[in-house]
Amino acid sequence: MLLFNTITIIGAGLIGSSLARAAKQLGLARRVIIADNYQPHLDATLRIGFADDATDNLAEAVADADVVVLATPVSTFEPIMQAIAPHLPQGCIVTDVGSVKQAVIAAVEPYIPAGCHFVPGHPIAGTEHSGPDAGFAELFQGRWCILTPTSNTSLTAIDPIQKLWEAVGANISIMDPQHHDSVLAMTSHVPHLIAFATVNAAADMGAHIDQEVLQISATTFSGFTRVAASDPIMWRDIFLANREPLLAQLNILQEEIATLTRAIRWGDSALVEERLTKARALRRQLKG
Amino acid sequence: MLLFNTITIIGAGLIGSSLARAAKQLGLARRVIIADNYQPHLDATLRIGFADDATDNLAEAVADADVVVLATPVSTFEPIMQAIAPHLPQGCIVTDVGSVKQAVIAAVEPYIPAGCHFVPGHPIAGTEHSGPDAGFAELFQGRWCILTPTSNTSLTAIDPIQKLWEAVGANISIMDPQHHDSVLAMTSHVPHLIAFATVNAAADMGAHIDQEVLQISATTFSGFTRVAASDPIMWRDIFLANREPLLAQLNILQEEIATLTRAIRWGDSALVEERLTKARALRRQLKG
Repeated sequence: MLLFNTITIIGAGLIGSSLARAAKQLGLARRVIIADNYQPHLDATLRIGFADDATDNLAEAVADADVVVLATPVSTFEPIMQAIAPHLPQGCIVTDVGSVKQAVIAAVEPYIPAGCHFVPGHPIAGTEHSGPDAGFAELFQGRWCILTPTSNTSLTAIDPIQKLWEAVGANISIMDPQHHDSVLAMTSHVPHLIAFATVNAAADMGAHIDQEVLQISATTFSGFTRVAASDPIMWRDIFLANREPLLAQLNILQEEIATLTRAIRWGDSALVEERLTKARALRRQLKG
Repeated sequence: MLLFNTITIIGAGLIGSSLARAAKQLGLARRVIIADNYQPHLDATLRIGFADDATDNLAEAVADADVVVLATPVSTFEPIMQAIAPHLPQGCIVTDVGSVKQAVIAAVEPYIPAGCHFVPGHPIAGTEHSGPDAGFAELFQGRWCILTPTSNTSLTAIDPIQKLWEAVGANISIMDPQHHDSVLAMTSHVPHLIAFATVNAAADMGAHIDQEVLQISATTFSGFTRVAASDPIMWRDIFLANREPLLAQLNILQEEIATLTRAIRWGDSALVEERLTKARALRRQLKG
């Protein structure tokens, strides 16, 4: 299922290396090129063999690309665009896998040369593991990939990117960037933030909490904090790049926590029960 | 492996019915009696057949019991003790499965007659499902059961309860009740409270969030909020009964959330990274 001559993926982390693996295995491009500025990632790329070429030279990496996929932490997108913009061939489509979209659009779109295109994207896939060794070709199967075109995005550029994600097994959802950022703040960024905070708070118990105790409480605590094992650099960038939606959704959560906390403090049994019963009914509507 | 003549389990919910199933299957007692004041639970007990007898008459249920296990929501323990205390046979050991221990000890211990015993217990096991149909005999295998004896608990009474939990596959940990309540507040009660609150907060997005969006965000959100499908009455009781340790641990978590929130608001990238890196290192030490 050949879609492109050359696809260049910048960043050989979990997402980038998984997409490269899938593109190679499915024959989606004649050449799959990995660009990365971290030598162990380049070494792993060639050792595992999920790309035809691996380089730290961004200009060379994109020179013949039909599609360039930005798959590094989102704070790097602007300097990467500055570096590659002069070398993008006519008709090239740049896309990304960043977990925030308004900030990424602001960082990337101004650098897209005339005759090239930008299709903002976010595959909702991942594990708490990171790096090229953690990737696998099936990562996107049955998952969603959200595309958030702007008023500048040409419809003819969306189509090949949609085909790329569908080819690796994802379902496509088209969404407004602002809506994406609010929804992801609540359903993903806030849970990650709370999970990181909960692990640190548990550690603050100091001598009162030890390995045995954490093992005893394994079920709830480890399920609740699993995502706190995720890459700190990636999540630092997501939190900072999605600041306003994240703070807004955190506020909404804090209001709900305050309502429950106050009801518990004052022994308002009926209110506690009402909030928990509402939450359970909503949660039970969700699969998984 | 016969341990007792008669074991009476009060409450045919997830934990009570699982313990009854295990006791029956392993032949731990000549008679397993279920007491419950909810007729559908009694019907389910006899239909599924995990007890030899099922009754709503507490006095009769405990009259020949070697062991009485309190397995109802913790707010019911005091009225149940008032009802059963006059009918407990000499030498009878009362134990419980409540998720808080100081409040349970205060509610139960004063009613234990001379010549009877109370061994506070907490099997750290469960699922987000509830009721007699959700139980299964293997629920406790490889899990921990914490016993929190008080200064009044006789060592000879601990031994049979320890043997009971070991027989159904649990590991035993002996712990101070106060320590238990702080540790469980942080590792279980706070995560449950946040999970309930997160589901309600997401629902507050109202028209902005719908079934499709929740399915899109399925991985993180559903893992993070899985325990919000738990029984609201049980958790209402746990939150209210463990109020002081829960509020104390919530405060510690709130300090950590505030540190992260403030760092995000002011773009303090180094501080965000430091907190996330610390959390990941701690989380990775945990199994599971």
